[in-house]
Amino acid sequence: MSVLIVGSTALDSIKTPHAENPRLLGGSASHAAVAASFFSPVKLVGVVGEDFPKKYVQLYRKHRIDLEGLQILPGKTFHWSGEYELNMNNRRTLLTELGVFETFTPTLPKAHQNIPYVLLANIAPSLQSHVLNQMQRPKFVIADTMDLWLNIALADLLKLIPRLDAFVLNDSEAHQLTKEDNVFAALKKVHKLGPKYVIIKKGSHGSILSGPRGFFICPAFPLHKVKDPTGAGDSFVGGLIGYLETARGSIDQNIRRAMIYGSVVASFC
Amino acid sequence: MSVLIVGSTALDSIKTPHAENPRLLGGSASHAAVAASFFSPVKLVGVVGEDFPKKYVQLYRKHRIDLEGLQILPGKTFHWSGEYELNMNNRRTLLTELGVFETFTPTLPKAHQNIPYVLLANIAPSLQSHVLNQMQRPKFVIADTMDLWLNIALADLLKLIPRLDAFVLNDSEAHQLTKEDNVFAALKKVHKLGPKYVIIKKGSHGSILSGPRGFFICPAFPLHKVKDPTGAGDSFVGGLIGYLETARGSIDQNIRRAMIYGSVVASFC
Repeated sequence: MSVLIVGSTALDSIKTPHAENPRLLGGSASHAAVAASFFSPVKLVGVVGEDFPKKYVQLYRKHRIDLEGLQILPGKTFHWSGEYELNMNNRRTLLTELGVFETFTPTLPKAHQNIPYVLLANIAPSLQSHVLNQMQRPKFVIADTMDLWLNIALADLLKLIPRLDAFVLNDSEAHQLTKEDNVFAALKKVHKLGPKYVIIKKGSHGSILSGPRGFFICPAFPLHKVKDPTGAGDSFVGGLIGYLETARGSIDQNIRRAMIYGSVVASFC
Repeated sequence: MSVLIVGSTALDSIKTPHAENPRLLGGSASHAAVAASFFSPVKLVGVVGEDFPKKYVQLYRKHRIDLEGLQILPGKTFHWSGEYELNMNNRRTLLTELGVFETFTPTLPKAHQNIPYVLLANIAPSLQSHVLNQMQRPKFVIADTMDLWLNIALADLLKLIPRLDAFVLNDSEAHQLTKEDNVFAALKKVHKLGPKYVIIKKGSHGSILSGPRGFFICPAFPLHKVKDPTGAGDSFVGGLIGYLETARGSIDQNIRRAMIYGSVVASFC
């Protein structure tokens, strides 16, 4: 068994109050795949350009991540550049270069289509649906998103959400999607779109699961110094699905514990 | 046994996006005393003016709150008026009329001086110290505060803090006091001032206890609609000390459970 993870694979140039680093390994699928690999074998689906550093391919390999679904295309790897404010909660995008991502439409290898656990990490919702269309009867499908898609691809996202077992978003995205200030009222509205489980990420304030057994309020791991929060949310979801894949028993028996593991892995990110 | 609670007893005129209500029962000691009364007998120490409505005295009595320490003086009851923004996290003060509070210096009845559990609810730190000076060997002393005292009475507050078993403040006050952005770094600095337990209130994000056994991260009770958050923090601390007073075993064995009870009582406030 293993976990299929599709999402962005990127190079991030990040400036924080503590440091400035160019062309770090980034992208939702990179963070999620590394996080999930601590629990389960991972098959990564994504695209990079010919400029993608070999050391990052080696890093994936070190984590035993299956790269059959990682396309290497002529052109440049998706590049994002951003800057964090002092409190680490606010960031602004300085630069976005799509590169080979602009024309990416993943075709899954045959062996990938029967994987039971699927993470549609943050990427355009049309691509998330495109991947899901190729899957045979997955057991558990979870998707993450970001404010960008709520702004420019809401219709695509609303087509995807009813097909999910679990949907993950952060508190401001939940507010944007539902127009509800209260997070519990927002959760109720997101459930009406279809997913059995809805998880709201609140950064250093932790996360909230809403499901058939009610709420589960999960703390973030207590960190005394946050150097760079990029990818923490992706790592959380990656750790979560990686643990779920290995755990015995039903999703409902394990998803709360999976959130705790996700939080711990995210703290290392 | 019982709990001694000193703090403000006031009339609050509050405007929220949902309603506007004049001269509600308010004040840190009022909220804390009612909350604690669900667990333990309470002795209230405070001051009101001759205009204090009888129905509020009856409300205290209904909760079997001992009013021997509640002075009724010629003049007006402390009156606060404030307005909440839509998200309920930000409020601004419209009016503060100190009234009889301006010259209040509580002298404790003899029977009050031996009470083992003491809550110094939010009030000027010089008055909190004045009350503490009159107590014989209390078993557990917990104090709350507010940004106002950090601004205008920091020296008094810094004299009080080392005398406390537990100190309660909210996240922005912790930042103001320690100059630390990270809440766990702030907690470490507050411990250095003396208290064995430090509790940081984070409103709808819950609260964090730091003590000899490490951290305890406590969620807020999930509310779908918040009508008026005034007094929720006071109710939390009131419920906490009320439960501690009745629980068997050591403070350290019970303080985590006490925070859960405090959160639940605060949700009713």
